[in-house]
Amino acid sequence: MADNSIGKRFRITSFGESHGKVIGIIIDGIPAGMEFDLNLIQKELELRRPAQSEITSPRFERDIAKPLSGIFNGKTTGAPLCLIIENEDFNSSKYDQVKLRPSHVDYVALRKFGGFADYRGSGRFSGRITAGFVIAGAIAKQLLKLRNISIFSYTKSIGKIFDDKDYSIENEEDLLRIREESPVRALNPELSKLMEQKVKSVMKNKDSIGGTIKCMVHNFPSGIGGPIFNSLESNLSKAIFSIPAVRGIEFGMGFNASLMKGSEHNDPWIYDNEELKTTKNDSGGIIGGISTGMPIEFNVAIKPTPSIGISQQSVNIKTRENISIKIEGKHDPCIVPRAIVVVEAMTAISLVDFLLLEGKIPSILN
Amino acid sequence: MADNSIGKRFRITSFGESHGKVIGIIIDGIPAGMEFDLNLIQKELELRRPAQSEITSPRFERDIAKPLSGIFNGKTTGAPLCLIIENEDFNSSKYDQVKLRPSHVDYVALRKFGGFADYRGSGRFSGRITAGFVIAGAIAKQLLKLRNISIFSYTKSIGKIFDDKDYSIENEEDLLRIREESPVRALNPELSKLMEQKVKSVMKNKDSIGGTIKCMVHNFPSGIGGPIFNSLESNLSKAIFSIPAVRGIEFGMGFNASLMKGSEHNDPWIYDNEELKTTKNDSGGIIGGISTGMPIEFNVAIKPTPSIGISQQSVNIKTRENISIKIEGKHDPCIVPRAIVVVEAMTAISLVDFLLLEGKIPSILN
Amino acid sequence: MADNSIGKRFRITSFGESHGKVIGIIIDGIPAGMEFDLNLIQKELELRRPAQSEITSPRFERDIAKPLSGIFNGKTTGAPLCLIIENEDFNSSKYDQVKLRPSHVDYVALRKFGGFADYRGSGRFSGRITAGFVIAGAIAKQLLKLRNISIFSYTKSIGKIFDDKDYSIENEEDLLRIREESPVRALNPELSKLMEQKVKSVMKNKDSIGGTIKCMVHNFPSGIGGPIFNSLESNLSKAIFSIPAVRGIEFGMGFNASLMKGSEHNDPWIYDNEELKTTKNDSGGIIGGISTGMPIEFNVAIKPTPSIGISQQSVNIKTRENISIKIEGKHDPCIVPRAIVVVEAMTAISLVDFLLLEGKIPSILN
Amino acid sequence: MADNSIGKRFRITSFGESHGKVIGIIIDGIPAGMEFDLNLIQKELELRRPAQSEITSPRFERDIAKPLSGIFNGKTTGAPLCLIIENEDFNSSKYDQVKLRPSHVDYVALRKFGGFADYRGSGRFSGRITAGFVIAGAIAKQLLKLRNISIFSYTKSIGKIFDDKDYSIENEEDLLRIREESPVRALNPELSKLMEQKVKSVMKNKDSIGGTIKCMVHNFPSGIGGPIFNSLESNLSKAIFSIPAVRGIEFGMGFNASLMKGSEHNDPWIYDNEELKTTKNDSGGIIGGISTGMPIEFNVAIKPTPSIGISQQSVNIKTRENISIKIEGKHDPCIVPRAIVVVEAMTAISLVDFLLLEGKIPSILN
Repeated sequence: MADNSIGKRFRITSFGESHGKVIGIIIDGIPAGMEFDLNLIQKELELRRPAQSEITSPRFERDIAKPLSGIFNGKTTGAPLCLIIENEDFNSSKYDQVKLRPSHVDYVALRKFGGFADYRGSGRFSGRITAGFVIAGAIAKQLLKLRNISIFSYTKSIGKIFDDKDYSIENEEDLLRIREESPVRALNPELSKLMEQKVKSVMKNKDSIGGTIKCMVHNFPSGIGGPIFNSLESNLSKAIFSIPAVRGIEFGMGFNASLMKGSEHNDPWIYDNEELKTTKNDSGGIIGGISTGMPIEFNVAIKPTPSIGISQQSVNIKTRENISIKIEGKHDPCIVPRAIVVVEAMTAISLVDFLLLEGKIPSILN
Repeated sequence: MADNSIGKRFRITSFGESHGKVIGIIIDGIPAGMEFDLNLIQKELELRRPAQSEITSPRFERDIAKPLSGIFNGKTTGAPLCLIIENEDFNSSKYDQVKLRPSHVDYVALRKFGGFADYRGSGRFSGRITAGFVIAGAIAKQLLKLRNISIFSYTKSIGKIFDDKDYSIENEEDLLRIREESPVRALNPELSKLMEQKVKSVMKNKDSIGGTIKCMVHNFPSGIGGPIFNSLESNLSKAIFSIPAVRGIEFGMGFNASLMKGSEHNDPWIYDNEELKTTKNDSGGIIGGISTGMPIEFNVAIKPTPSIGISQQSVNIKTRENISIKIEGKHDPCIVPRAIVVVEAMTAISLVDFLLLEGKIPSILN
Repeated sequence: MADNSIGKRFRITSFGESHGKVIGIIIDGIPAGMEFDLNLIQKELELRRPAQSEITSPRFERDIAKPLSGIFNGKTTGAPLCLIIENEDFNSSKYDQVKLRPSHVDYVALRKFGGFADYRGSGRFSGRITAGFVIAGAIAKQLLKLRNISIFSYTKSIGKIFDDKDYSIENEEDLLRIREESPVRALNPELSKLMEQKVKSVMKNKDSIGGTIKCMVHNFPSGIGGPIFNSLESNLSKAIFSIPAVRGIEFGMGFNASLMKGSEHNDPWIYDNEELKTTKNDSGGIIGGISTGMPIEFNVAIKPTPSIGISQQSVNIKTRENISIKIEGKHDPCIVPRAIVVVEAMTAISLVDFLLLEGKIPSILN
Repeated sequence: MADNSIGKRFRITSFGESHGKVIGIIIDGIPAGMEFDLNLIQKELELRRPAQSEITSPRFERDIAKPLSGIFNGKTTGAPLCLIIENEDFNSSKYDQVKLRPSHVDYVALRKFGGFADYRGSGRFSGRITAGFVIAGAIAKQLLKLRNISIFSYTKSIGKIFDDKDYSIENEEDLLRIREESPVRALNPELSKLMEQKVKSVMKNKDSIGGTIKCMVHNFPSGIGGPIFNSLESNLSKAIFSIPAVRGIEFGMGFNASLMKGSEHNDPWIYDNEELKTTKNDSGGIIGGISTGMPIEFNVAIKPTPSIGISQQSVNIKTRENISIKIEGKHDPCIVPRAIVVVEAMTAISLVDFLLLEGKIPSILN
């Protein structure tokens, strides 16, 4: 339905299937003259890659990004970039579309595409599609860095294990290192252990578990966004809900704001060394749909992956019989650790679009 | 910025200011031949109108919608509808843009529009702008009714007072009546009382309070939406975050899904009288971005209104002095009761766009 | 069908009907801080107004533009502008939709809108709709003037009477004055007389006549546009064909280029006082979809108005009988003189969109 | 600048460069369940391919389309199709960007992309990019065939040799065969000979020549399109001007309509065997921006290719010296014969978008 593009000025178009030849992405609207850094892209893909640790899906994919267009003499040209990842390790034998997996896409895919969709490995619905988002996100992040803007996400909770501490990405390198060392991508080493144990425990039981991701954006300039339909929240939420398994998003205090009084929630303005700030940031860096200059902060809820090996009741849609179903194959017991870089990517893609539209990043980089 | 339109096939364009001549809306993409029912629009506007009860802003606005175009012989023509509401009761004397109101739009408006914005009554940022959304929503709902689709929202919580019961809108008329009788637009009469007391109590203290709204859509057909960028959640969230004061959205079990195991969260499929269903609806009627045919359900978090009469610390951005500020004027202590119809409106607008794009509602109604 | 908007960054939305309450336009994306000059708009509307001379339709419309939103303290605010013109002089008694007027919209309107369209005075199909374009065009021109860009159109031909001379708008004021004095809006006084006689002659015979308009843009910066889908020609042609009665457009040498050899058509580059130029401008200021810095030039073909008083053969679509039809009412024998300002308007609207998108005009004017 | 997509519901995205790895196209919005026919695509590509005859560029490209995504079990899935053509025969040694070729893109590319564009073989500006259009066009044509709609283009003129006869594609197969046999893609064998001689003569002189293409669409249903911004002409012209070398477009009588009286130009309606028709088709099948049901007809002006071997005066933009330049390499003396299939492709792409948006072609083909 021409639904595979997002963005106005920095527009990405996704293509490819989980068990098809490739996963791919077109990135249109990149300024000309940007150093093309495949290593940087590859480094981001590593964070999303399956089989990166004991607690991720064992499907072995190296996820090597190959550029097909848009680069000349090592730099972007202003033309659209196309990058593909060739699929390597897939076994399509176990998929059919008539035994409906609970909370899985079999039925909706049938209704939407009339039985013609490539259902192998969930096809276009696969989390694997987000590898393309990560490629585009790596480029978007590189553009944001031109204005010294950083995006950082981490695992805030897995199941009921929460890390409620506030972190600041002013010391970004430390946080990156700590997160790197945590297989669940948490920032508190003790909680990380507990979360890891939790994931291993559900994995052992062939079950899965959900969690939440916190995303923070530093140094985003004030005055970007707009009231109503082009608010930062409208566009960020649209981008974030494009990631499979996301069930909720909240900005600043989010759902907790609903419990508060105005006198508690309001963020007072002060001058701190000539710089206008708020004394706290319950607004999450956005008021009236527009950035305040304080860090943009939001939380994302991720559901437990529906692919579990436990026996579940369901139906065969062809025979209309009740069936019992166990989902085989290579699956993640908890998608949160691999999703953090995808959240960062979609955030970067959405925010760079605003900055390009507002002329805050030029269309030729010299 | 060309940011004042939303929708592809059913597109609304908002204009007007809180203290300007009018608030207005253009609705483009309405099928030809629809009975134009101004009463129905007016009835919806009543639910959003200020001064409708003791606990809403006393600004007295009759909010009479006047059609300027798009209607002929009492029916829509296929041409764009323009409707305006003339502003009546406003006092612009109290507004300036240099004494920053905490968590209010003064500063971001200055940054975005360079001091040229109409700041009276918050101008384009005012909740009053949503009167136009309600007009368009009334028309979108009328189109959805052609396919027997209903949308119903209610106050799920105010502050910490929650109504966690599940309601079904199969008996929609009862619910409408009960909600009508509740000044806070809740469905449980006892909780409604408590919520009302809470609002009155913060009002007395010149403070404000947040809350949550639950929205339910019945009879929405399965197979609508899409994976990734055109998912139902992506588009609904974009529409809902266009409403001022919204800080979060969650679909189905939402943030609670993050606490759950797959074996708990997954919704088993069954045949119930030949009809395919799920035994529960933790997915909130959406899987893989596409409707399942079960009710679509989501919650919306509303922050406490920032306009409070309590003294707050802030700054004068011109003199750079610290100031103490009390916000005078006519304000709502809790915007939740007036926002429920706006949530319904933006939901209807978003969903009717999908149905028109998919050809599920024809472009000529005979 | 949500078809009534054009533009990405500077977007106009048209509404209203020929014999409805109003003709209106929304202009979204105007930078904040622009002086709002209603006189300038009104002056442009005068050039389009009916009853401005003996050879235009006698329908008497003052065409007074009334702003409803988007202005504060005499300046634009960054919010959408809405302007309306109230319709005054119309007589709807003569219109029906069953006696098909040859080369008129009756049949296509029936097919498109199923009989629900407001057919009075051709409703949305009326040339009167372009009054809104002229309003938006006046504002777009004002923005272009910030970069010293001028747009000028004139009548190049009526029927077979052609003015093939090349004019330069470096002496724009002279041209404006000469055009002002010509009721057919031609630049050569002798040819103007002949054209006027031609129009009067067809008018006397209750017939009509076509013509061509030449449009020139001076000082448009080089490097704007793009290859393929976002070429200047693609967007300008889309804008120009939005004007009723346009049947062709050609850039630079246009159709004559098809007769030429490359050695004749190619424009050699030279330095003229340090400035890069071409020795001639057969390319019409556009190569590869992008501006060269030379004047942008194109011709527009206008068909004879289909509303003629001469008896024509046609059918009654209800009874399926052959009929003879004479079109009564107030019509223009030649729409070319009134269309020149509409061509300028759509050109300005299209070009300002490019400049805003490329950051060549800032979003706040100080 | 995110400019490489066109279409709303059937959207194509172009990528790749003339001398890069690939030329590619994404096609989003194809209904699910369409037989994927690579032969049909290849057959269309043959008509655009260089080195297809003595009078086309000798660059030897087989132009083999390779699908990367969107196909499963030989059918479309509803997911985006990506097809690429690997570039084979290119010699990039002769290109630089400082010696400006007259009427060529060197200068505008420098201005637009700041010297970072891939200038080899004109990069993104190359006519080679249109191979992707032809791929998408082949698929669009296949969808149009579902409604029995045919598109047919032919060479109407080369230089001053014109074929003014009217052809009807009711006997499409004959026309296809005749065109196939003509190396210049003309329909009159005698004129074809003359045109071929003309091309050979300019080729011998290292010069080039322009021409015109006539495009006809049969069986397009009435009632498609719209007044003003979404008119058929607006969208078709936008699509056609996306083809390099196009300098003009005219619908129906086009520029000749400007010479006519209303009484001559108007097309009378009649019933012919119960079917509503016009006795002639000077409107070219479109009135008020909407299809009448008569054949859609338009002419396209193609300029002489700027790459000629004759010595031309120009400048070196680096040294600012006057230079004399002869363009070496493999070029077409007349691009018209290879462009006819590109005109058909862009027409098909534009029209299928309308039909899908209006629900005239379903989103699932069974």
